[in-house]
Formats: sequence, structure tokens, C-alpha cells
Amino acid sequence: MRPDFEKMNGLVPAIAQDAKTGEVLMMAYMNEQAWDKTLETGEVHYWSRSRQELWHKGGTSGHVQKVHTIRLDCDDDTILVLVEQLGGAACHKGYRSCFYRELKDGKVSECSPVVFDPKEVYKK
Amino acid sequence: MRPDFEKMNGLVPAIAQDAKTGEVLMMAYMNEQAWDKTLETGEVHYWSRSRQELWHKGGTSGHVQKVHTIRLDCDDDTILVLVEQLGGAACHKGYRSCFYRELKDGKVSECSPVVFDPKEVYKK
Repeated sequence: MRPDFEKMNGLVPAIAQDAKTGEVLMMAYMNEQAWDKTLETGEVHYWSRSRQELWHKGGTSGHVQKVHTIRLDCDDDTILVLVEQLGGAACHKGYRSCFYRELKDGKVSECSPVVFDPKEVYKK
Repeated sequence: MRPDFEKMNGLVPAIAQDAKTGEVLMMAYMNEQAWDKTLETGEVHYWSRSRQELWHKGGTSGHVQKVHTIRLDCDDDTILVLVEQLGGAACHKGYRSCFYRELKDGKVSECSPVVFDPKEVYKK
């Protein structure tokens, strides 16, 4: 079971979902290096498109994602990682989930709690 | 609340999640037309990259996705749609979820039930 990196020009979308609650936490991208590192370490690694470097999720904030299960879709071009989210938050803005805004019945509201203050966590 | 289509060269990843069970069903892409059509009709529309056309999910199989809630991530570049999956299956191979294979503790196994026979559904 291995994503088809070639088909995707090297970058495959990877969804992180909380293994316990089922909440979708974030989506980012993995290249082969990030995939291998994730399997090897049991902690989720992505490829940062903005920084163009391997990104150990939580390396700075401590909000590491421990791998619980990895799933692959029918086209081998999307990864779903069930994780234990250390620190309880995935979003760099401090929300539990990056998907913290929702549109329902025509109204926009916030739907994910703030877990930390980014100014405190990233001040170093 | 609107995805940043421009930043993403017109195509934004859209994750479909079962609103009741929390199961992640599939991921595909929306362009502006698909996004607008989804909001307008209350049924999920994607942009098919392979066919290069608007794709009313379930239009052929009857396995339409009714919109429950739409969420957007912190970077405005990923959509999460909570859906009611009519027919009980999202995958064109007949599985409930496109993410039907998983790797856990070093073992690969199937993790989503087969709901329909693709040969029957797509025979027309």
C-alpha cells in the first residue's frame, strides 16, 4: 500500500483525522520523503509547499500527530491518517481543527474551540 | 466564507465526510462552478479532472451527497463537506468509503464494507 506520487507530480494530499473523535483536523501534502518518514517514526510528516522542506508536524509547537492508522483511497492519490493529536490542536491559529469555520443553513459560524494562543506557542 | 480558488489555480481539494458517522468518504476537487452549484442545489458537485467537466456526484449511480454542513480551513484552500451519502456508498468500486484499505501495526487490510456491485450500478 503506497500512494502514487508520480501521478501527482510528487505531492499527495494527506488528511489528518482524530482517531478517537473522528474530527477532521487538517489537510496538507506528503511527498515520498514525508511518507517514508511518517512510517518510520510513527509521527506525521508533511511536505511544506510554502517553505519547500520536510515538515515534522508539531516540531515547533509540540503538537505532534501520532500515527494510529493510515488509509489510502481507491485511486492511490489521497492519504487519510488517523492520528492522536498531542496538545489537542492541529491548527497553527490555535484551533483544535483547521476547519474551524462552517456554513450551515446559510449562516457562517465557528465550530472548533481555541486550544492555545499562537503568540505563546510560537514566540520562541 | 469562500475558498481561494485563485491561489489554487482554480481547483480546491474537497473532502466529503459522513455527517452522522464521521467516516471520511472521499476527496475530490471543486472549481468555482462546482462550489456554486453545490451551494445552489444542496448536492455536492465536484470538478472531474479526468473528464474535465462538472461532476454531479451520484448523477449516474444515484449515490448523491446531500450537503449537511460546509467547512473551510484556515488557509481557505481546503473544503470539508459533511454529507448525507445516499445509497450508503461513495466509492465507484462499491465500497462505502474510497479509503477502504488501511495500514495498521504493519498490516494492510480492508476497512470499509462493499455496499454495491459496480457492474450492476454502472451497466447502463
